Amino acid sequence: MNTLYEHGTLAMLMAKNLAGTITLGELLKHGSCGLGTFEGLDGEVMILDNEVYQAESSGKVHHITDMQTTLPFASVHFPQDQHKVSLQNVNFDLLNKSFVHDHQLQNVFAALRLHGTLSDVLIRIAPKQERPYPSLLEVAKGQPTFPRKNITGTVFGYYAPAAFGSITAAGWHLHFLSDDHQYEGHLLSFDSDEMTGDYEVFDQLDQHFPVNDKEFRESDVDIESLREGIAKSEGHQD
Amino acid sequence: MNTLYEHGTLAMLMAKNLAGTITLGELLKHGSCGLGTFEGLDGEVMILDNEVYQAESSGKVHHITDMQTTLPFASVHFPQDQHKVSLQNVNFDLLNKSFVHDHQLQNVFAALRLHGTLSDVLIRIAPKQERPYPSLLEVAKGQPTFPRKNITGTVFGYYAPAAFGSITAAGWHLHFLSDDHQYEGHLLSFDSDEMTGDYEVFDQLDQHFPVNDKEFRESDVDIESLREGIAKSEGHQD
Repeated sequence: MNTLYEHGTLAMLMAKNLAGTITLGELLKHGSCGLGTFEGLDGEVMILDNEVYQAESSGKVHHITDMQTTLPFASVHFPQDQHKVSLQNVNFDLLNKSFVHDHQLQNVFAALRLHGTLSDVLIRIAPKQERPYPSLLEVAKGQPTFPRKNITGTVFGYYAPAAFGSITAAGWHLHFLSDDHQYEGHLLSFDSDEMTGDYEVFDQLDQHFPVNDKEFRESDVDIESLREGIAKSEGHQD
Repeated sequence: MNTLYEHGTLAMLMAKNLAGTITLGELLKHGSCGLGTFEGLDGEVMILDNEVYQAESSGKVHHITDMQTTLPFASVHFPQDQHKVSLQNVNFDLLNKSFVHDHQLQNVFAALRLHGTLSDVLIRIAPKQERPYPSLLEVAKGQPTFPRKNITGTVFGYYAPAAFGSITAAGWHLHFLSDDHQYEGHLLSFDSDEMTGDYEVFDQLDQHFPVNDKEFRESDVDIESLREGIAKSEGHQD
């Protein structure tokens, strides 16, 4: 059984629930690789082989070892049953079209991990918010972006079916971490001549809710604006 | 940890994937109470305390013991940590408004089980479909309904947050089974002077996918029409 564990939902972030509701220590019990953000939407988190990296909105990347750090939203898994892939001319267009089609990912959750040199890359990093928290959509309006050229590292993240677009980012949600651990963030666009790695299809999504969090239980989700808001805040550029 | 297990999604049913993709035997490993439908959208299934009842579209109710019977879609759980409730003047309006508000269910999955006498009740039963399968929406157009007055039994089912409305029925999804096991179906409307029972809030949704089913993997979901279609086919009347 290949399981993807998700704590919190994008719907919660849209409803301004940015308080951390799971500790990093608890999260890592459910996976050794993953993506997320810290309390207050503080940066972009990438977990690779149990090592946790957080890019803050200055662009600086931290290696996080404090297991009491909390997150409002994160997805993790323990890699298994991976299929090796070797891709040429890699970008979001390739991943969105031929990759999803060739491996028939459109209706399932999947993980993807690719390594290689990117000729061009653009990431964005969410800036930390203070109470009273804004919604994810408001935060998304003013997020710093960081371009690079000719940088080697790891593209990692998840694919989610369109029907789950109110809960998590529909389609690809990928981060990039450079091999020197100095550059990391939410991937907006990239180009690479060649990348190799693996993907994995999940049988099951374990969607966990912070049911004992009073703010979460009390908050109202505006379902009408939810999907549009998520598309605007979690999308990539091509 | 209170977990709701769901096999398949309404998005799959909307995409005409009505083939059974889990056996009853496997399903019951994940819960002793639940709701679902059999292959081909054959009727309305209610599982109470490990006993499986299926109403077929003639209105007849069967006690199902063949564990090889398959289902395309079902939700089950093992009851625990229930909160007792005693309600007066019970109908969908009460459940949708004050019950959800009083127990702050709007952002979580929950189970509800109530027993009592209904002065008035209307159920519908999905008719079995043959290949090539239509979508859930097409089936929903011509479903037989069955009214009753003064009938005693169990209202059972689940509450799902609005953000999950493309995956499962948002809001309440309830079935009714009479104490004599002769009348069962998807609850469209009801009225009762007094009902007692319990509800339970889930920490986690375990959403399982039939990833080895070729038709499921290949099918295309029309996300634009999905939400509207589910609202039309899975709604109740008040």
